Parts: sequence; C-alpha cells; structure tokens
Amino acid sequence: MRMLSRILRPRLEASAHCDLPCGVYDPAQARIEAESVKAIQEKYQGNDDVDFRTRAVEIKEQRSDLVKHHLWVLWTDYFKPPHFEKYPQLNQLFNEATKLAGAAGTKGSMDVAKADELLAKIEEISKIFWETKQG
Amino acid sequence: MRMLSRILRPRLEASAHCDLPCGVYDPAQARIEAESVKAIQEKYQGNDDVDFRTRAVEIKEQRSDLVKHHLWVLWTDYFKPPHFEKYPQLNQLFNEATKLAGAAGTKGSMDVAKADELLAKIEEISKIFWETKQG
Amino acid sequence: MRMLSRILRPRLEASAHCDLPCGVYDPAQARIEAESVKAIQEKYQGNDDVDFRTRAVEIKEQRSDLVKHHLWVLWTDYFKPPHFEKYPQLNQLFNEATKLAGAAGTKGSMDVAKADELLAKIEEISKIFWETKQG
Amino acid sequence: MRMLSRILRPRLEASAHCDLPCGVYDPAQARIEAESVKAIQEKYQGNDDVDFRTRAVEIKEQRSDLVKHHLWVLWTDYFKPPHFEKYPQLNQLFNEATKLAGAAGTKGSMDVAKADELLAKIEEISKIFWETKQG
Amino acid sequence: MRMLSRILRPRLEASAHCDLPCGVYDPAQARIEAESVKAIQEKYQGNDDVDFRTRAVEIKEQRSDLVKHHLWVLWTDYFKPPHFEKYPQLNQLFNEATKLAGAAGTKGSMDVAKADELLAKIEEISKIFWETKQG
Amino acid sequence: MRMLSRILRPRLEASAHCDLPCGVYDPAQARIEAESVKAIQEKYQGNDDVDFRTRAVEIKEQRSDLVKHHLWVLWTDYFKPPHFEKYPQLNQLFNEATKLAGAAGTKGSMDVAKADELLAKIEEISKIFWETKQG
Repeated sequence: MRMLSRILRPRLEASAHCDLPCGVYDPAQARIEAESVKAIQEKYQGNDDVDFRTRAVEIKEQRSDLVKHHLWVLWTDYFKPPHFEKYPQLNQLFNEATKLAGAAGTKGSMDVAKADELLAKIEEISKIFWETKQG
Repeated sequence: MRMLSRILRPRLEASAHCDLPCGVYDPAQARIEAESVKAIQEKYQGNDDVDFRTRAVEIKEQRSDLVKHHLWVLWTDYFKPPHFEKYPQLNQLFNEATKLAGAAGTKGSMDVAKADELLAKIEEISKIFWETKQG
Repeated sequence: MRMLSRILRPRLEASAHCDLPCGVYDPAQARIEAESVKAIQEKYQGNDDVDFRTRAVEIKEQRSDLVKHHLWVLWTDYFKPPHFEKYPQLNQLFNEATKLAGAAGTKGSMDVAKADELLAKIEEISKIFWETKQG
Repeated sequence: MRMLSRILRPRLEASAHCDLPCGVYDPAQARIEAESVKAIQEKYQGNDDVDFRTRAVEIKEQRSDLVKHHLWVLWTDYFKPPHFEKYPQLNQLFNEATKLAGAAGTKGSMDVAKADELLAKIEEISKIFWETKQG
Repeated sequence: MRMLSRILRPRLEASAHCDLPCGVYDPAQARIEAESVKAIQEKYQGNDDVDFRTRAVEIKEQRSDLVKHHLWVLWTDYFKPPHFEKYPQLNQLFNEATKLAGAAGTKGSMDVAKADELLAKIEEISKIFWETKQG
Repeated sequence: MRMLSRILRPRLEASAHCDLPCGVYDPAQARIEAESVKAIQEKYQGNDDVDFRTRAVEIKEQRSDLVKHHLWVLWTDYFKPPHFEKYPQLNQLFNEATKLAGAAGTKGSMDVAKADELLAKIEEISKIFWETKQG
C-alpha cells in the first residue's frame, strides 16, 4: 500500500531543505523528531530510574531543538510572500508550533499531551505545505 | 491520496531514531538528505558561477554526512541480531550505502548517477526496514 | 542615537537567550554575526586568491546561519503574543531578516549591500526589542 | 565608566571573530553567555523540580562551554605578541577565566558567586580589549 | 620508551580519518573516548551529588556518541572489500562495538564492566586495523 | 613492538579530556588532526580538480579547528598553576600552536611547511605533557 501511495503522489515525494537551496523540503523531518519527543515522554513515564530519566530529559531537549530547527527552516526558506498572503495564519501557526517545542512546551514538560499539541500543529503546517506543492 | 495511504498503514508511520532509545526510526531521514544531494548536483550542473559551485560542494558535503549518519544509526541502533540473520546482506548493504555517500560517492562526485545509486541502496534498506516493522 | 538609547537603559544591557529559559536575550548576537558577514564580503572583494575566496564563501555561510539562528530564537523564545499585537510588523520583519541571511541574501551574494540590508533589518528588530524591555 | 568609554569609541563598536579572519571580535559574546550562566543558577536556586534542575545543569554546561570558546578565540585569534608584551597578565587572565567556566567553576557549581567571578574576569579582559582597539 | 616505540613503528604512526579522504585513521580516537567513558563511570560511582551525577550522565552520553562516530568512520571509510574478505568477523565486530557504546551499553549503564567490554572490542578492532596497515 | 611499549608505560596510557573532568587527556588527539591537515595539503598539491580543492580547503578548515580545540582543552583543563610555574614557556607555546592552526597558519595556507611547524609545536607540548604525567 505504501508503494501504491508513492506511485500516486510522485510530484510530492521530493521536498527541499538545505539553503543552497536544493529545493527539497519535507515537514516529515519535524514530525519524526516530534514523534521521538512523544515516545521519550512515554518511556520516561514508565521508568523511574534516576539516570534513565536524566537521559530522557536531555535527549528530549535535543529532539525538541531539532523540531524547532526544521520548522524554522520551512518558515524562512520554503514559504514565500504569496504563501503568506494565501495562508494568513502561517506566521502564528509557526510561532505557536516552535513555542510548543520550547520551554513552555515539550522541552519543559513530560506530559504527552504537549507532544500531541505539537504534532497537531505540525500536521496543520504539513497540510498547508502539501497544498502549496500541488498548487 | 496521501491521507488515505496514512490510514492504511498506521503501524508503520511512527519509527524511532534517538538512542534513549525512543524507538522511532525512519529511513525517510536518510532518503530526504540523499534527495537533497541529488538536487544539489543538478543545480551545480546548471550554474557555473564559481561561488555558487563552492557553496554547492560544501553543502553537498554536509548533506552526504547526514546520509551517512542516519544510515549508521539504523545499522547500529535499529537492526538487531535476528534481523542480520534473516537478511544476511544487511551489513554489505549498509557498508556500500554509506561508502556511496562518502569520498568515492556523492561527496567526491557531482555526477547525479552517484546520487541515484545511493538512493537505490537506501530504497533497498527501506524495503527491508518496513518488512521488519510488519513482521 | 543608538548610544543615547544605551545610556538611558543601563539595567537592560543584560538580556537572555537560552531555552531554559534563562531570560537573557540580546539582538547584539545576531548583529555581531551580520557584521562579520559584511567584513567577510569586504575581504573577499579585496583578495582574488582562489582558496581565500573558498574560505570566505564557506565561513560566510556559517556566519549567515548563526544570524538566522539568533533571530529565530528571538522570534520564538523572546517575543510573546502581546508583543505581536503591539508590533504587527514583527512577523514579516523576522521573516524578511532571516531570508536576508539566506540563499537569496548574504549566503548567496558577495555584495556588501546585502549585508547592509540585513544589518538594517536587525537594527529595526533591535529597536523594538529594547522598547519591549523598557515597557 | 563603561558607558563613557563606549561613547568615546563609537568606531570600535564593531569587532571581528571568525577565523578568515573577518576582524570582528567582541567580548560581549563571552559576557552574554556568562550572564546566561548566572541566570540559570538563579533559576535553579528558585525551583526544586527535578527535571527542571536537570535541564538547568545541562544547559549551563553548554553555555559555559560557549564562554570558554569565545574566550579562547579572543586569546588565540585577536591578541597578538605586542599585546602580550604590553599586558603581561593576559595569559593568566585568560587561563583563569576559562578555568572559571569549567569543572572547577560554573560547570561544576550552582553557586552564583562563581558566575560573578567569571563575569569579573571577562570584564577585566574586556577593558584590555577595548584599550587595544583604541591604541 | 614511548619515543622508542615511535621510532620502531614509523609507518603505523600516521593514520587517516577525514573523508577527503586524507588517509589518516587511528583507532586511538575511539579508544580515548571509551577510556573517558570508563573514567566518568568511576567518578560517578564515587560521588553521589545529584548535579554531579547529572553532568556525568550527560557527558558520558556525548563521549559514547563520539566512540560510535569514530568506529563508524573506520568501518565505512577505512575498511575496504578485501579487508572484509580477510576478516569476515569485521562487520559483526563493529556492529557489536557500536551497540556497546549505545543505549544497551555505556550510554544506558553506569557499570564499568560495560566500558571494559567496549574497550576490549575496540582493542580487537585496533589489532586488525594495525595488521592491515602492515600488510 | 606497539604492544611492548604499551606494557612498559601503562600509567601513561590513559589520559583524560572531558570537562567532568574525567581526567583522560592525550595530545595524540591534536596530533592526529594535525597529521590529517598535512595529508590534506599534500593531496591538494597533487590534484588540481577545482571541486576536489574546494573540498580540501573546507575539510582542512574543520580539521584545523579541531586542532585548536584539542589544544585549548589541554591548556585550560589539564595544565594547572604548578605546571605553568615549572614550564614558563607553556602559555606562549600554546598560543603559538593554536595560532599555527589558524588563519595565519594551516587554515590560511596549503604549504605543508605550516603543518610541519604545527606538528613540531604539538610535539613540544606533548613532551611536556608526558613529563608532567610521570612526575
């Protein structure tokens, strides 16, 4: 089924992200890190070993940073003025999403609900992203 | 269609990658970087400005490094002894794939064919990866 | 005028920037990197040695990345909803400033005028930043 | 006095720091990180949540590393033999300052007094730095 | 004696590691980081201060990562097909060694025995490495 | 012979380098990077392909940075006041060595003689280092 879906959306497959720019972007990069953040929170909840929790806190910090970074790259490098005109909510969406991966969000909390909020925001961004690729 | 494919393969969606471990792995991380490498090579071929090419060489170096890193993580952190037994070609596959992202591969060449070879190897790894997730 | 504003707000000199958050932010971090970018462009213009220019292109790339990073941190971590209400231009300002440090700005150009545009944007952000500290 | 010296040397404001070298150096980079270290210690003292403290310890480690790095760059890249002749205390000053940002200093301690000692050393370095710029 | 040993094995001294490739490799890089990991575990066992232990866990994480990285570089960049033919155990050796520096090894444990196992694996790799250099 | 030399100097083998501190230091880390720098210069001299040379310049930059970093760590973290008293040349030695890995040294030059000067300085430091370990 995965192969099928690939065949059906070939134009969407490639997505850019480096600042040559190569033109390859994909919100999946932010999503994968956010899924990792959520999984870390779950493992933390199920393990009260002090050192394990220290590792969880530290790794979640790094992964949250990666979420912020991937989102910032999309906001600055991928989205252009016409996109911001068509989707006036984009700025707030990105600001809220990156805040949700910060101190008041997944960095500062072990509550899985925070990661779920973050994943939902990333999904909103992702939907807009793929719409602009099809346009 | 993308949404449909998501619904049809929910168990495969999440994949782990940090070394807590969080348990989230996804070969898409290596593939996205390799697609970037290929796109950089194409842009390089179409632009003979000296500084642009310097930037292309440098950024391709970093992106190739990321490909190597993501693949190494899968090889060491995700794959376990039973996988290596079932797929005896795995070691060679990963060794060749990471070499293809190195000096004798995409780092040292601006030939798009190198990136295509690399992408094909990653696709082979990806197929095995998703089979093990379904097992 | 800049010197004057500094004399009037001595207590505000210190400013925070890590995502504990420590609460210390300072647009000077972005400005210093942008000044470095400009100085690199000037040195590049005055030296046609091939390897020197390669180094200049590469180092300018990194310094431009730091400008983007420091600005993103301010945009996400320092500025809060009330700021965005009071300064509705903030989103566009940051988006333009980070774009000016990217491929279509100082990363992709050796023209000192690009760095000057970037420095002017950072100065605009800086003025708003210090106003919010005094509020 | 600090403000006064700033007014008297406006042209010196910009200072270099990358190793092209671009020629832009500024002790403010080390100072800002050290202020962050101090703020982290203060927040740690006022919050006994285990995970918050883990984050504080970890982030303070990174920020202390940045202090060391910025100081090392000044010591090696900015200061030249004539400076060391004129200011024979420079070597010891930098060695003590970087040690103060290490294991026996702000990395290993949550005592704000350590950060204050570090900030005082950076201020001493900063004074010498600005004197050499005026020379 | 150290000087003597240097004189007696001059051809082995230089070893390559960057991916130009420069051709300089040395398993000592992985070994030094693994020795650091072991020393950190020992210091952790002898000190029950909470913050010291947090720092130990965090720094051990980074050093274990460096062990993995240095080993991966040897596996992909230094060893060539003829080596893998002559030493069929190489793949498994590297896979086990890098796993021993991961979550189920020195990252996840404060037991010095884990570091000893890791050091023993690195020594095995080192022996093969130096044999291939003499070949 | 290498094994023999190891047996004969067991106390010197382990050397510390992280800032816990773990107590493991080894000038070999700086030396290996400097040998890489020299090898890169040699390969650059023997290959006039533009892109290869761009890669050489870029990688040499990074490796020179690592030399500086490893030396700075020794200077600040390993050497203590009594060492500086006994070896009054230490400060100048480290300052010159790190400058030799910078813009006026191996970063800015493709002349192998620069790397040789750097390696000689590192050897001087190494000799003092091992003397202090035996003391």
